[in-house]
Amino acid sequence: MRIRIDDPADPRLDDVRDLKRSDNRPDLPGGKGLVIAEGPLVVGRLLESRFPVRCLVGFPGKLDAFLAETDVPGNLPIYEVSREVLAEVAGYDMHRGLLAAADRAPEPELAEILSSARTVVVLEGVGDHENIGSMFRNAAGMGVDAVLFGNGCADPLYRRVVRVSMGHVLRTPYAHLTGSYTTWQRSLQELADAGFHLVSLTPDPGAEHLADALVDEQGEPWPKVALLVGAEGPGLTEHAMRATDVRARIPMAPGTDSLNLATSAAVAFYERDRSLR
Amino acid sequence: MRIRIDDPADPRLDDVRDLKRSDNRPDLPGGKGLVIAEGPLVVGRLLESRFPVRCLVGFPGKLDAFLAETDVPGNLPIYEVSREVLAEVAGYDMHRGLLAAADRAPEPELAEILSSARTVVVLEGVGDHENIGSMFRNAAGMGVDAVLFGNGCADPLYRRVVRVSMGHVLRTPYAHLTGSYTTWQRSLQELADAGFHLVSLTPDPGAEHLADALVDEQGEPWPKVALLVGAEGPGLTEHAMRATDVRARIPMAPGTDSLNLATSAAVAFYERDRSLR
Repeated sequence: MRIRIDDPADPRLDDVRDLKRSDNRPDLPGGKGLVIAEGPLVVGRLLESRFPVRCLVGFPGKLDAFLAETDVPGNLPIYEVSREVLAEVAGYDMHRGLLAAADRAPEPELAEILSSARTVVVLEGVGDHENIGSMFRNAAGMGVDAVLFGNGCADPLYRRVVRVSMGHVLRTPYAHLTGSYTTWQRSLQELADAGFHLVSLTPDPGAEHLADALVDEQGEPWPKVALLVGAEGPGLTEHAMRATDVRARIPMAPGTDSLNLATSAAVAFYERDRSLR
Repeated sequence: MRIRIDDPADPRLDDVRDLKRSDNRPDLPGGKGLVIAEGPLVVGRLLESRFPVRCLVGFPGKLDAFLAETDVPGNLPIYEVSREVLAEVAGYDMHRGLLAAADRAPEPELAEILSSARTVVVLEGVGDHENIGSMFRNAAGMGVDAVLFGNGCADPLYRRVVRVSMGHVLRTPYAHLTGSYTTWQRSLQELADAGFHLVSLTPDPGAEHLADALVDEQGEPWPKVALLVGAEGPGLTEHAMRATDVRARIPMAPGTDSLNLATSAAVAFYERDRSLR
């Protein structure tokens, strides 16, 4: 259902209107925006995801190229627009010229995730969208099965997260651990009950070397591992670390700063995968 | 030598004028800008570095706080400015309120670097400033002794690189490998002659696991290692990879994208450090 639209005021383009403000939508449930995918790679991943796609919007040539390689549902509205019209609707010149909008969808149940996962990462207090996006990209690339959110984390479906994650936030399962601000860490017990070995990542030089923290006393890898990561700067709360089995560090040269959050996590994901060789 | 300046046109502020364009200075040797450090952490690192600092500029309160904790040379010009004046001079509102400018300085000789280094990273075709900055941050944090540049890399003293590296580009030795576009890889022979084991990092699934590539047949770590990293996307040239001893890969989940360049390098730096435990 491909329709050419030349009027920037056409309400059929409302899903992609004013994109820089599109993450805050007081008119939608929870005040959060639609899921927005930009560029063919991420749009393709959105179409394969659990999120119900509402429309596809693009320049004629970009749509031609994309549709030649991708099957889309026959009833999906496809709006063909000029670069000028899209710039006026979206609020800036979007050179990639292809985007899609989808509704949010319920998260999978924690129990469902835990039943099959072997490695999960748990984030606490991570408010930075770029870090969350990179975390999903690294998690997907390095075989992490799910991302779990403790308190104080930014919205994983924020437009920038979707972009930085290269669409992996649409594919890698994630869920929010429930609980009030002071007690979300109790849900970590659910992970322990499901057989996960809980590992806090910390720059503390007194912590165990990451390589040692991911294997048991016989040097065998723990069958299920949950890696906890806190925000850059404050790190994990003591409350969260106390709920874990071990505190692990990535060795750092003296007098240097800790690594970027998503980079630290990538190193931990690598070591986890390495322990399973 | 602390001097209050209230006139944005004062030529003593020229070193920090129009900062967004400050990386291109046709009037300076090579057309490249001064070294600019922003914020107390990076300004402090600039003052400790080999780069000759020309001036320190800041809001009164920021200067007070910085100078209470840092010794600066008695003859260093220190210019006290208001937020409004600095915004007009620099071209944007600089909330950090403290910066310093320095002259560029010659690079150390390659032979000097190689004589004491145990681990170096060699970049080829890395034009992205953010990647180069993160590379320096990761290298410094994880015990890499030097960064070497092959052809096609961006300027490591670009303002954004200095900022993203958190000033580590001012401390970690680096040098450019000489040679024309098609033959810079010959300088890799100098590394081999100096006893370095040369390792190409590649997403190629046929390459060796990184952990295996960094140890010899007896499982002992190579005494000296040079890790080669190419640009995100194209990766290393075949020409460069042929000049190395081994091609190493970080295992990736099927159907995912390769890691960010600086993230891949961080994983390799971690594995190198781990092999030396």
